[in-house]
Amino acid sequence: MTGDAHQFLADGLVTSPQRFIAGGSYVGLKTYAPDKMDVGLLLSELPCRTAGVYTTNKFVSPSVTLTRQNVDAGKVRGVFVTSGIANAGVGEQGMTDVKECLQLAADHLGVGADELGAGTTGVIGVELPMALIRGGMSGITVNGDGGAAFARAIMTTDRVPKSAAVSFTCADGETVTIGGCVKGSGMIHPNMATMLAFLTTDAAVDGAFLDAALRNCSDDTFNMVTIDGDTSTNDMVLLLANGAAGNAEINEGSPDAEAFGAALYALCSHLSRELVRDAEGSSKIFSVRVAGAASKTDARLAARAIAASLLVKSAIHGNDPNWGRVVCAAGYSGADLDVSKVSFFINDVAIMEGGTPIPFHRESVIAIMSREEVALTVTLGMGGHEATAWGCELTEEYVVFNSAYTT
Amino acid sequence: MTGDAHQFLADGLVTSPQRFIAGGSYVGLKTYAPDKMDVGLLLSELPCRTAGVYTTNKFVSPSVTLTRQNVDAGKVRGVFVTSGIANAGVGEQGMTDVKECLQLAADHLGVGADELGAGTTGVIGVELPMALIRGGMSGITVNGDGGAAFARAIMTTDRVPKSAAVSFTCADGETVTIGGCVKGSGMIHPNMATMLAFLTTDAAVDGAFLDAALRNCSDDTFNMVTIDGDTSTNDMVLLLANGAAGNAEINEGSPDAEAFGAALYALCSHLSRELVRDAEGSSKIFSVRVAGAASKTDARLAARAIAASLLVKSAIHGNDPNWGRVVCAAGYSGADLDVSKVSFFINDVAIMEGGTPIPFHRESVIAIMSREEVALTVTLGMGGHEATAWGCELTEEYVVFNSAYTT
Repeated sequence: MTGDAHQFLADGLVTSPQRFIAGGSYVGLKTYAPDKMDVGLLLSELPCRTAGVYTTNKFVSPSVTLTRQNVDAGKVRGVFVTSGIANAGVGEQGMTDVKECLQLAADHLGVGADELGAGTTGVIGVELPMALIRGGMSGITVNGDGGAAFARAIMTTDRVPKSAAVSFTCADGETVTIGGCVKGSGMIHPNMATMLAFLTTDAAVDGAFLDAALRNCSDDTFNMVTIDGDTSTNDMVLLLANGAAGNAEINEGSPDAEAFGAALYALCSHLSRELVRDAEGSSKIFSVRVAGAASKTDARLAARAIAASLLVKSAIHGNDPNWGRVVCAAGYSGADLDVSKVSFFINDVAIMEGGTPIPFHRESVIAIMSREEVALTVTLGMGGHEATAWGCELTEEYVVFNSAYTT
Repeated sequence: MTGDAHQFLADGLVTSPQRFIAGGSYVGLKTYAPDKMDVGLLLSELPCRTAGVYTTNKFVSPSVTLTRQNVDAGKVRGVFVTSGIANAGVGEQGMTDVKECLQLAADHLGVGADELGAGTTGVIGVELPMALIRGGMSGITVNGDGGAAFARAIMTTDRVPKSAAVSFTCADGETVTIGGCVKGSGMIHPNMATMLAFLTTDAAVDGAFLDAALRNCSDDTFNMVTIDGDTSTNDMVLLLANGAAGNAEINEGSPDAEAFGAALYALCSHLSRELVRDAEGSSKIFSVRVAGAASKTDARLAARAIAASLLVKSAIHGNDPNWGRVVCAAGYSGADLDVSKVSFFINDVAIMEGGTPIPFHRESVIAIMSREEVALTVTLGMGGHEATAWGCELTEEYVVFNSAYTT
């Protein structure tokens, strides 16, 4: 599934790690189709350490606010999700409704409402039809095979469910698994745009280490993907760790810390790429690696500005090696740069070196750009930091799709 | 031409103010068509005070660098322009070429090369074909009727030339005229994206006042329009004042200061709106007025974020009153806000008040949104500052057009 050494499980799911159960059902929040689901539950049968990363939008859904409160209180070991309606922009009713959702879910699962988070996604500004949720909660069957249904229950305009799991062996021999699913599509942008990601692991992990690992990993993966530049009201990434693998607790200095971080990165990187690949109207994705930056922040700024540029996205769509747009985007990104030190490559073909274009063979570069995945590399020559962002082409289909989302 | 009280001249041009001459010609930088021009000259027959505002992109054309030097040295009274090639991203050759262009233009006009600025726009990364410019310079005839040709000479993907002029009467009875032309289309974004604007006036104006007036006015007009979010290497706005009207010099405290500022604002606001109206693939524009902001900066941030949002632009295209996208964009703009105080109106119809949606009549709002110009208003309820940004719809045509700009 990816080119790196990590062992991805066949058909990996949020229920791949031990002692996680999940399920999904359809209650009518979205137009009906045979395989559609719009409510879901995920639960660890054991207590969890849980870490979260949330949208930075000041217009935030009460679902995010309540989830953050519960996660911070330290007891969260499960999630209730709905798709089709965001539960945002509905005034105080939003908090009332999400609280009732969690109570209904808690009663159904036999846990406390403060042991759950809530992920909601969809149209902003319409209230959750609570009658449908009240009537449908008991229809959600949760079990160890339910990860696939749960991944379907968070989809909105996603074309396919996106799940994966990765495992590694601890220094003491225990096998640890990390699973996850993600929904994206539209409004995906650095810093948590309408994206929900739920990650589970049976590793025993120290709480502070779990927080730091999720934050670092999100900055390099979920926060480096961009589809249309809008960030949303409802984004969150949760990572639940239940310790069922029986490993020695992983913390900053422990022998398994690096392996855990690397496995988490491999999983999140894979899910991020799949998320961009599934973007509205897009059939082609591209990576933007910025190297030689003066700081990590500069590398991220430049990579994200290039990946987010509409002109770059349009050029990718048209197989147009218009490198000026790429360097121009780096120039306005805020990253420190000196054009006379900038070089640019499409896949491995040098297009510009030291601020001056190289006479490249146009036909061969167009051929490279016609592939389903294009790799752009910009070297700034200012230092030793790098970052990679992911973007997708801008297509006519995107416009058609998004001009009539609520109509 | 606009709804305000300012007296716009019929067929206003950069040559409408007294003692400005201009002209344009075709030398072959762009594909030939009967009415196409790609080089132009503008000159004041009298010495000028000149103010400039330039791109903030770190990847900057030597044309901008040289112009800024000459303007800062205080002798600029004319401009040489080319369109089709940006003279950016070509290493040291770029400065060599723009210096030769100004020398050729100066020799042709009988002035010093340090009395001219250079505006270049077009494809990045290819060198100016100097042989064509050397051969063609003498073909540019400048005279008092040449403002229309000059406006054509700066066009790239613009569909129509965009010029205007406005006049007012000074306290002492003299008539002062301000003229201008602008090119935009694609890569138009706050903070000077591929936009060239050349403004002329026969007013006598103090240098410091001229600088301040241009900067303030640009922040509220040219820097508040957005087409695709990319900012460019070549943007500049120049304002040349030659004093031919014989008025008492206008400075901060003089009786004509306010009238001059208001007339300049009316002209730049009009040109900005025309620039958005002429955007690639767009036939519909929208204004975003943010009021009740805690600061002017907040008002501008929120208005520009909304106008730049692809999801908002797509919704405008589809006549979709998806107000969630509007409020969401305000939320991630960086402006200080409290959702429970936010209200939103489409034209004058209330859609959301105090953070809660109002059950509006959908059909009538769709009808309003079907007009060629749509007015969005967001009130933040945080203070007394406001700003207005302009954007255009995102169309399928934009994507088709920009996926093959260099191919």
